[in-house]
Amino acid sequence: MKPVRRIVLLGSTGSIGVNTLKVVEDHPEEFQVAGLAAQSNVERLAEQARAFRPKAVAIRDSSRAGRLQELLAGAGVQPKILVGDEGVEELAGMEGVEAVVVAITGAAALQPTLAAIAKGRTIGLANKETLVMAGELVMRQVEERRARLLPIDSEHSAIFQCLQGHSSEDLKRILLTTSGGPLKEVPLEEFGRLPKEKIMDHPRWKMGPKITVDSATMMNKALEVIEAHWLFRLPVDQVEVLVHPEAIVHSMVEFLDGSIIAQMGVTDMRLPIQYALTYPRRLPSSLPALDLVALKRLTFEAPDRRKFPCLNLGAEAARQGGTAPAALNAANEGCVTAFLEDGLPFVRIPSVIERVLSRHRPIPHPSLREILEADAWAREQVLTSIGVRPSGVRPQRV
Amino acid sequence: MKPVRRIVLLGSTGSIGVNTLKVVEDHPEEFQVAGLAAQSNVERLAEQARAFRPKAVAIRDSSRAGRLQELLAGAGVQPKILVGDEGVEELAGMEGVEAVVVAITGAAALQPTLAAIAKGRTIGLANKETLVMAGELVMRQVEERRARLLPIDSEHSAIFQCLQGHSSEDLKRILLTTSGGPLKEVPLEEFGRLPKEKIMDHPRWKMGPKITVDSATMMNKALEVIEAHWLFRLPVDQVEVLVHPEAIVHSMVEFLDGSIIAQMGVTDMRLPIQYALTYPRRLPSSLPALDLVALKRLTFEAPDRRKFPCLNLGAEAARQGGTAPAALNAANEGCVTAFLEDGLPFVRIPSVIERVLSRHRPIPHPSLREILEADAWAREQVLTSIGVRPSGVRPQRV
Repeated sequence: MKPVRRIVLLGSTGSIGVNTLKVVEDHPEEFQVAGLAAQSNVERLAEQARAFRPKAVAIRDSSRAGRLQELLAGAGVQPKILVGDEGVEELAGMEGVEAVVVAITGAAALQPTLAAIAKGRTIGLANKETLVMAGELVMRQVEERRARLLPIDSEHSAIFQCLQGHSSEDLKRILLTTSGGPLKEVPLEEFGRLPKEKIMDHPRWKMGPKITVDSATMMNKALEVIEAHWLFRLPVDQVEVLVHPEAIVHSMVEFLDGSIIAQMGVTDMRLPIQYALTYPRRLPSSLPALDLVALKRLTFEAPDRRKFPCLNLGAEAARQGGTAPAALNAANEGCVTAFLEDGLPFVRIPSVIERVLSRHRPIPHPSLREILEADAWAREQVLTSIGVRPSGVRPQRV
Repeated sequence: MKPVRRIVLLGSTGSIGVNTLKVVEDHPEEFQVAGLAAQSNVERLAEQARAFRPKAVAIRDSSRAGRLQELLAGAGVQPKILVGDEGVEELAGMEGVEAVVVAITGAAALQPTLAAIAKGRTIGLANKETLVMAGELVMRQVEERRARLLPIDSEHSAIFQCLQGHSSEDLKRILLTTSGGPLKEVPLEEFGRLPKEKIMDHPRWKMGPKITVDSATMMNKALEVIEAHWLFRLPVDQVEVLVHPEAIVHSMVEFLDGSIIAQMGVTDMRLPIQYALTYPRRLPSSLPALDLVALKRLTFEAPDRRKFPCLNLGAEAARQGGTAPAALNAANEGCVTAFLEDGLPFVRIPSVIERVLSRHRPIPHPSLREILEADAWAREQVLTSIGVRPSGVRPQRV
């Protein structure tokens, strides 16, 4: 009998969270859900609690706690209810758990992730911002607490899989693939008059709105480059972006001798989620096999850095180091929120981020407080740059 | 200081042999050539001996031994000279050596390989026939003598690289790639009137004549399927052949969960040779990096089993097991020799092999003697099938 792996899932009602629960459902003999946390979707959280019977649930938006309690009572389950940021952090550090899946979007994931690291857990990290904001700090704490950080997004999981059995000293380059995003075929000249629906319609992956906008600006890829740089301890200039529209090759690594190892699969998040939960072994999955004969071809292109200046902004922030990536990330979150709430045109996102970054004085080897200050500062700078404070655009608490 | 790896190279004057010496030349601080063996090309062997100063050389064709002695004296080097099959075997088991590279073509590699296994060496195996003929026996002896068998041909090296860090229990399928050979685009109807030059002109790899013909019939791939089946301990029906004309993906593995790991690189034998010699680490190579953007696309097709019946013959022989693959291999060697000496038309190769295989009564778990008997029997059967014994077609001693 293999031991059941008890899992805490942070961000259970989002896209990665729902897919994580599908993996658990596929292998009821392997996994048990000990805790679930969500931002505000209490309806789905209560449903999940009924289906998976966790010992505790956390709701970040404290105004929804009462409704959650009602729904849980109605569903006939009585998990411990935790509330607010403190509640999510408490759940992340919950005892009697082997793995914590961090499927929270944005900067909000940082502190719960640090709470799980402090307990030495295996962490399945689907959140990019944690390492982008605080890569140095997080990796140091992972080492000190002997925690294990396993990537869950498809690209970093691919890189992680490709590196298995090889020495990271022999690694020359990472080739991080991207489908090119929803605007790959749209000329730069048309960016100014794009309807929001076009931007929000990603051709390959169905994701939350924040990641979908990041995919359109390719900031998503810029953040992944910074993440890979920390996770695999490689200078940012050795992490290259390669456009691969079919999104079958999830990423590649190149070794000293020129040999390239690539990971491929169907485009389904359940694959990298499951690998993080079963690592270093694998389990069968219910997904269809990849049929390369039916696919016929895999194509590759260089990214268009003129159309997608966020790629260069990301690399520049990583080269500056210190608090610069945190400022970049916060500026981006601020811009995306403003765009989603119609407070900022899509084309202006890169220039606002660039302006914030150019004003930032990076603090080297920052503490968590310095990182959070850089984050708050950059969000304020976005609002200043936009000129007015549009209704609904609030600096997020982190 | 890393210890220099002393190498014996069997088949030094052929294509793999020459490339192995290029790898040694690229890394003079890493490798030292202790022994060189060739079939009959004494001129090149003497040149190599002058350049690499081995302690011993072996010449299989005893009629060339005198000439070799003259040439070596002229070159001012005095390695020990070994002669004939016994000489090659003695060199394979030479003391004070860490690795033996087996770059001999055909069935002649089997006994020297067993001699190196008996000494518990690390063996870089570029020869397909060894495992095709005697896979069960060879793998058992590798285990008993704690030898290490590292594949050198590009496909098996790729599979070996892809499996690193993963459990072979989690392996679902091997996807063995092939460029499709020189006749991929030639319709079956034209096979009967193909000029020999067309068959001998492989689009991707420059190789010896035997392997080039095998590439045209795709028997090469059938033999590789059998080899992979032994090397990676997978049923032959879990080794699939995938046509990939660009020959960039050298092979792939698919795991239980549907994840595929692929190995890619420029098409140069120095890559797999070097990996076998530096395994599990890697060294820089002087080869140009693979440029996927310049390549633009990688394409995949199913093989045409009607045009290339050798693929099915290989799988059928592996399913029969016992001495059947040895008979298949010998029948193929007999046919290729006859074709090269204009004693057998190209189109008749598969049907002659099929006839020989259909008459064979496989002996399960065969001894070396039984394998060699099946080999000799199959070669005789080819001559009988061809009807006449054309001048120059002699059964090879193995």
